[in-house]
Amino acid sequence: MKNRKLSLKILMSLLMVGFSTAVFAQGNINSEIASILQVQQYERAIHIMAMLILGFGFLMVFVKKYGRSALTATFLLVSVALPFYFLSNSLFTNGAEKGEIEKLILAEFAAASLLIAAGAVLGRVKMHQYIVLGILFTVFYMLNEWIVLRNGLGLLSGAVIDTGGSITIHAFGAIFGVAAALSLTRNGQLEKIVESDATSDRFSMLGSMVLWVFWPSFCAALVPVEAIPHTVINVFLALCGSTLITYVLSTWLRGKTSIADIANATLAGGVAIGSTCDTASYPIALVIGMIAGAISTNAYVLLQDRQRKFLKAVDTCGVSNLHGLPGLFGGLMAIPVVAGLNIPSQLLGIVITISVALLFGWISGKIVALVGERKNAYLDVEEFMEAEAEVD
Amino acid sequence: MKNRKLSLKILMSLLMVGFSTAVFAQGNINSEIASILQVQQYERAIHIMAMLILGFGFLMVFVKKYGRSALTATFLLVSVALPFYFLSNSLFTNGAEKGEIEKLILAEFAAASLLIAAGAVLGRVKMHQYIVLGILFTVFYMLNEWIVLRNGLGLLSGAVIDTGGSITIHAFGAIFGVAAALSLTRNGQLEKIVESDATSDRFSMLGSMVLWVFWPSFCAALVPVEAIPHTVINVFLALCGSTLITYVLSTWLRGKTSIADIANATLAGGVAIGSTCDTASYPIALVIGMIAGAISTNAYVLLQDRQRKFLKAVDTCGVSNLHGLPGLFGGLMAIPVVAGLNIPSQLLGIVITISVALLFGWISGKIVALVGERKNAYLDVEEFMEAEAEVD
Amino acid sequence: MKNRKLSLKILMSLLMVGFSTAVFAQGNINSEIASILQVQQYERAIHIMAMLILGFGFLMVFVKKYGRSALTATFLLVSVALPFYFLSNSLFTNGAEKGEIEKLILAEFAAASLLIAAGAVLGRVKMHQYIVLGILFTVFYMLNEWIVLRNGLGLLSGAVIDTGGSITIHAFGAIFGVAAALSLTRNGQLEKIVESDATSDRFSMLGSMVLWVFWPSFCAALVPVEAIPHTVINVFLALCGSTLITYVLSTWLRGKTSIADIANATLAGGVAIGSTCDTASYPIALVIGMIAGAISTNAYVLLQDRQRKFLKAVDTCGVSNLHGLPGLFGGLMAIPVVAGLNIPSQLLGIVITISVALLFGWISGKIVALVGERKNAYLDVEEFMEAEAEVD
Repeated sequence: MKNRKLSLKILMSLLMVGFSTAVFAQGNINSEIASILQVQQYERAIHIMAMLILGFGFLMVFVKKYGRSALTATFLLVSVALPFYFLSNSLFTNGAEKGEIEKLILAEFAAASLLIAAGAVLGRVKMHQYIVLGILFTVFYMLNEWIVLRNGLGLLSGAVIDTGGSITIHAFGAIFGVAAALSLTRNGQLEKIVESDATSDRFSMLGSMVLWVFWPSFCAALVPVEAIPHTVINVFLALCGSTLITYVLSTWLRGKTSIADIANATLAGGVAIGSTCDTASYPIALVIGMIAGAISTNAYVLLQDRQRKFLKAVDTCGVSNLHGLPGLFGGLMAIPVVAGLNIPSQLLGIVITISVALLFGWISGKIVALVGERKNAYLDVEEFMEAEAEVD
Repeated sequence: MKNRKLSLKILMSLLMVGFSTAVFAQGNINSEIASILQVQQYERAIHIMAMLILGFGFLMVFVKKYGRSALTATFLLVSVALPFYFLSNSLFTNGAEKGEIEKLILAEFAAASLLIAAGAVLGRVKMHQYIVLGILFTVFYMLNEWIVLRNGLGLLSGAVIDTGGSITIHAFGAIFGVAAALSLTRNGQLEKIVESDATSDRFSMLGSMVLWVFWPSFCAALVPVEAIPHTVINVFLALCGSTLITYVLSTWLRGKTSIADIANATLAGGVAIGSTCDTASYPIALVIGMIAGAISTNAYVLLQDRQRKFLKAVDTCGVSNLHGLPGLFGGLMAIPVVAGLNIPSQLLGIVITISVALLFGWISGKIVALVGERKNAYLDVEEFMEAEAEVD
Repeated sequence: MKNRKLSLKILMSLLMVGFSTAVFAQGNINSEIASILQVQQYERAIHIMAMLILGFGFLMVFVKKYGRSALTATFLLVSVALPFYFLSNSLFTNGAEKGEIEKLILAEFAAASLLIAAGAVLGRVKMHQYIVLGILFTVFYMLNEWIVLRNGLGLLSGAVIDTGGSITIHAFGAIFGVAAALSLTRNGQLEKIVESDATSDRFSMLGSMVLWVFWPSFCAALVPVEAIPHTVINVFLALCGSTLITYVLSTWLRGKTSIADIANATLAGGVAIGSTCDTASYPIALVIGMIAGAISTNAYVLLQDRQRKFLKAVDTCGVSNLHGLPGLFGGLMAIPVVAGLNIPSQLLGIVITISVALLFGWISGKIVALVGERKNAYLDVEEFMEAEAEVD
């Protein structure tokens, strides 16, 4: 009897020790896995940073005598938006504990949207005006994000689906930028032609290619780890689709190929697949990319010049053609693609985004115009020492 | 008695609960780890995409007035091969469940081989001819891959060892490309000199450096996770070896250094280490790199011009010097390096690859010549609007 | 009785099987996690390699007719330092088992420090002299690392805190380089102006941006996985700080903005945050970046020309302004920031680093001057074939 009682006690002790060890090791492993997932998210954050700094930066170098300025403006816009959004986010989050890298990525999204907006007014403001634009933009971007994605005003009955930011990053940035351009562009600047040359075209393609290569990390940045493979392949398929269609349409519509179309409209697939990057099937992703490339190329060919006359405004990079229209198209594509989507909310979210962008883009343009005035658009020499050696 | 029976029952219940929880948690952790490994493979896939688009793209910008075309061709070739291979692979795989990212990487390998082939005919075809070449190439690349790596025709008694693609990616692409060049090159193009300038040389070095930096991810893309550290260090050691030797030989053989050698032959170490990147020791990797650099530089110095006279063909980028000869050398190095290698299979695999590439490269060249004809080689202005402003 | 004994035996067997399986699976998972962490470290190693080759390489292309040479020198310096340090490290490590990727990263740190040093003498030595400099530098870098970070001579009573290398990578490299420049610069070279143009300025910004984007991986390379999120955000905040301050001060002090300041001094935040990247708080990191940017910009504006007259030496890239002063500042910032720091050791470590760098930099300069002599500083044509076509 004593032996059996002893055996039982030994068994129970072993069991408890075993349990505790297992629970402790499990907790340890779960904690390590959580850290590993954070670091994987960090790697996607670095890819996005490459898109912001190198991608957007060099894409905007297509303006042939404005390269130093475009690159410096990129550095400044990111250096304003990133800390501003990140520290605001830390201040105003109501307890909900987000990972640090997730907050960094959300700040990068804000910076991306800002760079899109700045592309519309590129070359027609002074450097310090980009900084002021950056501060204003980030405030209104956060406002729109709060209303549309976190339902801050309670206007939406369901969630707006916008995983890769077709609506709240791309369309918002483009419309904000064009609205700012509307209230910023001075008459003398309407006639000035924005020119590129062989070297600025190649630098521009460098920026375009950096954006193309890392785009899947942008869309999959905050997607759950098991959904990442399908998401990233969707993005590449969409980009392949818009790339092929852009070449075909640019050449067919213009007679010759325009390298500006190749540098810009090829990316429309990435813009449009944003809302549905984790839900679409592979063939649908390819088709979304192709349609987006068609929309974008047609916009560049048909609208870019008409826009100047009609709106009396210049959209330097044609952001409405690459981020505006394809972004809205992408947001609408969620309606057929995503099962169980709340369609009224999706449409209202798009309408709110357009409204906030138009209104506060216009206002911001007026404020930016108050704090400075550029004499010579599209020329480095107005602000950069080293450009004085090459004045015509 | 009753107490002891109860204790036993409680013990057994606890044990079963504990077991189930442990099994469930284990399964959960194993599933998470599998997702994490997939995402790590995705990160290597992004590095490879940077090599394809930025690396190959800008390496080919060395042709001084053909930069826009070289970059656009790169976009188109990848946008054709990637979806074509990926969707074919999904259709024809007999049940064996590969991960999605593994399929993406295999598609990237096909695109890499295609870009190598295109480098041989670079500048002498029109843009739509690159697209046709891309479609044809991908078909024959898949054929060779099926015969040599999956033993589709049952010709091989053992496996062909080619982890990083020295044979089936590099040598295949180069030989296919030269064969296509043989059947494509028109007489008038033989005399035309391919020129670079200070700017196109620096863009070319940009492409070269992108390839150099990310090469370890290319070789280690599908290698098991515990083998990755040794593999990637092998690749860097091989690249350091070929870089040093290339500088020494280029300067010694030519009197001055050729930046074209520096941009191309320095990469030969990466090409050659492919077949043995996971098996070689560190000193062997360094030596393989040095020998490959010597082979490649000698080929650029001694063969590039003779090839033109002898073959009556132009290999614009000298792909036979960088990918052809070093690729074959790398495939042969598996024989001394890999223990237990099936030597007859390895040699037969190399012979098959050369044959398939020669035959179908030639045929493809003929088909590509049927669908178009370029008037002015190596000039953007024939196809790109923006180049009209700079015609001599 | 027999049944109960049997039940007990079955229970104990199940328990033992369960335990063994759990231990085995745990060990398996721990081993997988270790491999995963190694591969994550590998990804940071690739980011660092991009900084070394593309970042430093293109930053040094600002010298307008020396681009091919600057890029080739970068390839050669890395190809010398990397294998030399890596294989030395493997020979001389006394048993302490480091991971392979950790050794690769330590080799990359050595290469980074070498590239900084080379930036001081850039353009004034022949290509083979860079190789000799690389070999000598790596020896003395390893010596300083041994004395300061591993307390090889037992001079330090406590550890020197230098996680991201502000002292032992940046300051060491800069001071070594300036000391070598002191003993290398020949009189005729003092008057020669180092010029850039619009294209070399844009290439230089490309290098600067690559360094900016990947800098967090440099600082967080060997940091424990759970500390990585905080560390990388600190680095980005520091870079945003130095970027904004650099623009403001460059424009204010010079009247116009200098793109050379934007390309270089914006990075000072990354240099300075090195010693405290894992310990500082977010606001402190931002402030450290801003102060570093102020130090660096003031140095570029006020010291760069005076240095030439005073020292009778040319520091081509101004490495003392970007890596020297901000590096020392960063090493000193550990004193207020890091709790429990051994202040005498930190100061002594800095003094030792400065001394070793000055002494052996000078000596190395003398040796390098013995093995070659450049006729024409800052011109590709002296060593590169392709540059002959563009001689003025």
